[in-house]
Amino acid sequence: MSYTIGVDYGTDSVRALVVDTRTGEEMGTHVFDYPRWKEGLYCDPSTNSFRQHPLDYLEGLEVSIIGALEQCGSDVAQKVVGISVDTTGSTPAAVNQKGIPLALLPGFEENPNAMFVLWKDHTGLKEADEINALARSWGGVDYTKYEGGIYSSEWFWAKVLHVLREDKKVKEEAWSWVEHCDWIPALLVGDTDPLKLKRSRCAAGHKAMWHESFGGLPDEDFLLKLDPLLGGLKERLFEETFVKVGTLSDEWAHKLGLPATVAVGAGAFDAHLGALGAEIGPYQLSKVMGTSTCDMIIAPQSELGDRPVEGICGQVDGSIVPGMVGLEAGQSAFGDIYAWFKDLLMWPIEHVVSEIDGLDEALKQKIRKESADHMIDQLSEAAAKLNPADSSLLALDWMNGRRTPDANQNLKGAIMGLTLGTDAPAIFRALIEATAFGARMIVDRFVEEGVRIDEVIALGGVAKKSPLVMQIMADVLNKPIKVARSEQAVALGSAMAAAVVAGVHDSIPEAQKAMGGGFETEYRPDPALAKLYAGLYERYKRFGQFVEGETGRVTANK
Amino acid sequence: MSYTIGVDYGTDSVRALVVDTRTGEEMGTHVFDYPRWKEGLYCDPSTNSFRQHPLDYLEGLEVSIIGALEQCGSDVAQKVVGISVDTTGSTPAAVNQKGIPLALLPGFEENPNAMFVLWKDHTGLKEADEINALARSWGGVDYTKYEGGIYSSEWFWAKVLHVLREDKKVKEEAWSWVEHCDWIPALLVGDTDPLKLKRSRCAAGHKAMWHESFGGLPDEDFLLKLDPLLGGLKERLFEETFVKVGTLSDEWAHKLGLPATVAVGAGAFDAHLGALGAEIGPYQLSKVMGTSTCDMIIAPQSELGDRPVEGICGQVDGSIVPGMVGLEAGQSAFGDIYAWFKDLLMWPIEHVVSEIDGLDEALKQKIRKESADHMIDQLSEAAAKLNPADSSLLALDWMNGRRTPDANQNLKGAIMGLTLGTDAPAIFRALIEATAFGARMIVDRFVEEGVRIDEVIALGGVAKKSPLVMQIMADVLNKPIKVARSEQAVALGSAMAAAVVAGVHDSIPEAQKAMGGGFETEYRPDPALAKLYAGLYERYKRFGQFVEGETGRVTANK
Repeated sequence: MSYTIGVDYGTDSVRALVVDTRTGEEMGTHVFDYPRWKEGLYCDPSTNSFRQHPLDYLEGLEVSIIGALEQCGSDVAQKVVGISVDTTGSTPAAVNQKGIPLALLPGFEENPNAMFVLWKDHTGLKEADEINALARSWGGVDYTKYEGGIYSSEWFWAKVLHVLREDKKVKEEAWSWVEHCDWIPALLVGDTDPLKLKRSRCAAGHKAMWHESFGGLPDEDFLLKLDPLLGGLKERLFEETFVKVGTLSDEWAHKLGLPATVAVGAGAFDAHLGALGAEIGPYQLSKVMGTSTCDMIIAPQSELGDRPVEGICGQVDGSIVPGMVGLEAGQSAFGDIYAWFKDLLMWPIEHVVSEIDGLDEALKQKIRKESADHMIDQLSEAAAKLNPADSSLLALDWMNGRRTPDANQNLKGAIMGLTLGTDAPAIFRALIEATAFGARMIVDRFVEEGVRIDEVIALGGVAKKSPLVMQIMADVLNKPIKVARSEQAVALGSAMAAAVVAGVHDSIPEAQKAMGGGFETEYRPDPALAKLYAGLYERYKRFGQFVEGETGRVTANK
Repeated sequence: MSYTIGVDYGTDSVRALVVDTRTGEEMGTHVFDYPRWKEGLYCDPSTNSFRQHPLDYLEGLEVSIIGALEQCGSDVAQKVVGISVDTTGSTPAAVNQKGIPLALLPGFEENPNAMFVLWKDHTGLKEADEINALARSWGGVDYTKYEGGIYSSEWFWAKVLHVLREDKKVKEEAWSWVEHCDWIPALLVGDTDPLKLKRSRCAAGHKAMWHESFGGLPDEDFLLKLDPLLGGLKERLFEETFVKVGTLSDEWAHKLGLPATVAVGAGAFDAHLGALGAEIGPYQLSKVMGTSTCDMIIAPQSELGDRPVEGICGQVDGSIVPGMVGLEAGQSAFGDIYAWFKDLLMWPIEHVVSEIDGLDEALKQKIRKESADHMIDQLSEAAAKLNPADSSLLALDWMNGRRTPDANQNLKGAIMGLTLGTDAPAIFRALIEATAFGARMIVDRFVEEGVRIDEVIALGGVAKKSPLVMQIMADVLNKPIKVARSEQAVALGSAMAAAVVAGVHDSIPEAQKAMGGGFETEYRPDPALAKLYAGLYERYKRFGQFVEGETGRVTANK
């Protein structure tokens, strides 16, 4: 008997999951909400600035693992053989020469620029534009070519450069930079020296323009041309990538009550390990459907080769499963769009109901809380009753820009077909349809670029919680969608990876076979609705072309 | 000393106003809300079907006039010399051979097709398309040419034909048809015989394709080609139009406590008499800004001639002031758009807050009522603080189709530039801006067609109540806007018309001079915002072109 622990850092919380490596039985789990993040600290949504304090991560590491172990039998901890960690990404932070994020140093504790720059932070828009322009004009290799041909403001170099330009104090103190997914494993093995820190291929290849054919990261020349501020940084980062990082340090073994022999895997992005947890196989599209989506496909390197797939987020050999090219795409906002509409509808409750005389504060509080808690369920219930054939609405899902196909963070959402009879549930349904059309754009791009899709598998909060979204998604994609059974498929994927790193299983497919949880539901497309949506999808594309033309395409790779 | 009474039938209520013919002093006024309409009877907003029961009008006529007289000194009633009536329009009803609207006959009391078809009813969309197609193809006169070149579903013939096709019982019983504005004066003089009923030029010329150069209404041939159902109807309608209808019948003189010598003017549409009340002069644009807008210009017949002005609602010699061509345009929805957004935001209060356990019914009722009462004020307050330069939003104001320029009731509203940070006040402001851009399209069309606009004057609920809307309107039009002082400028305009009909004043301009209330405010454009909006307006037009292209332009007159 042996167990592994998957640690899954999401946007709002971190979850630890203890799994039986032979059966996949989920023995214990614990979730820790980031306390500073929950208070809204260090963020400014109006400028798309989202930062997370390293203490949120540190505290969560300990509490979540110990909490998960407490749910297991007392003999389990001593039989743990591996830990793997996944995180959001690209989520980099500036670190000093010892690999300590600056926000943990005196004088930087409250400085958002000294913290992790969360995946959905778009403050580096201008820097991403510059990277794209330079990559196509400098005369050397186009370093964006394995990242879909368009570098995003959500990624490593755009964020690094933006912060260095923005904050002189951080610039002076920043010796190197780490991704969240690389920093946690380094912490666990007790050595965060940036020069020794074992980086994962996942973050390197998908977000930092690292590729074997480039000999690693982009040339110093390229970086200097981008901005002299980047001079010398390359040699304080990394050349190689790794699958295993080491074994638990005595300090962390003691803190967590685990043997110091526990193997620590290289970190990876949540969507990548989620795809594992949902038992991704060749030519299957794994969709992690949460606040945003991450869409993963794996295809044999021998079949796909090194041909760039245009307009996606990246293609990296071995980033998900060794021997397979991991291809990544996704939507910048998904559940976030539903939540945005909920927030929009909370305005009258927060600003109008709150002003009514004669309601006491506790009652207003209750009304606010219960409304927020039930809004999406009630919208969904009403929207499910609508017949899309009766609707004139059509929306674009770009409220947070567009990640793929063809990244353009300047794009914005839109809706047409409004009448004086349009009500909130009708708009909510149109927003769901828009997110499904956005998903179809990605599927179509893969297929156009020669990457076939045999099956769609789904995981993540929206996949588990919203039959309405899932049915519309199946109708719009005109493909059946299977939903992974595990309630925590991402953490399960991490635990699978840990079982391979620890040597319990020889390969990812073997770990999936032993530990996989299977599927709970399959949504099948309704042929009549699929036909209706196929027509609307053509209009969605035309609407998108119009809006994109008006927005101005800041970067164009064709 | 003498007095006249203006009776102003709006969408929701009728107002009577007693005015001193020498000074314009408003002696007494009374408003009557239509009770059946208020309950939502006979309407189906989901199909844009809006009908009003003649009893709402009849009851309101008596109550409003008596109520207004009660506010005056006891000697006033006997010194009343004239009554004029304005109504919404085109608002026709089927009548029997005696001129009785069918809904007042046994068996038709609850039949919406036997009632007045309200101005904003769009059920005749298909019929309007047919009229447009036929007018351009039948080989004879294009009867739409003095109605902007595009016949609207909001107008007489489209509504008549739609109801005749829809309802066999009504078809059998309908001997003729009357406009609301023609029926009330006929009632007051005690003769509603359709063949003798004195129709106003206003409704005839602007909505029923009546023109002197056609010899009246369209040819029987044309109507038969449109649909044999219309056969013979023309000769049961009218050939001529009138300014004065007669004097009060004994029955109504007795009911209202007025002398039987009171002159009764021909009815007219509210916007036309509102323009009078707001002291319209040549080349002034009078905007009645309420649920929709009606935009009026008068220009000397000698200067304008008979050249058709393309894309507006109509141009009729003498429809507002004798000797002047009255030109009409307008937006299908204006305040209705703000009210729609309010209703959208009421959804969570009506459907989510209402479901919260532990709130008693009285409290829920209070929350609903107070929220509805304060929503628009609070949205306006928040929207007024926004800097439009910070907004990425741009909306189209076609939630109820587009009346002018170039009528197209199939068009729908839209909004682009949505981000995850977009909140309700920002959308509200974008909707206001959209209604102002729609207004500018009308101004531009008049100017392009050679009708200059020297000044803008405004009246109506929105003009009086919303400084935010008015300031944005001034900024977008880049013209100063004067707001009429009278709280009931439309009824005042009717009272002015009555004073001319009664012979107290020799002409409309003289009545305006004596009875006009002047202006209370002038909104002046902010040069910086005018410039900003000029740029956005170009985008508004492109957005409109895109949406119109997607909608399909059902009728095209170029």
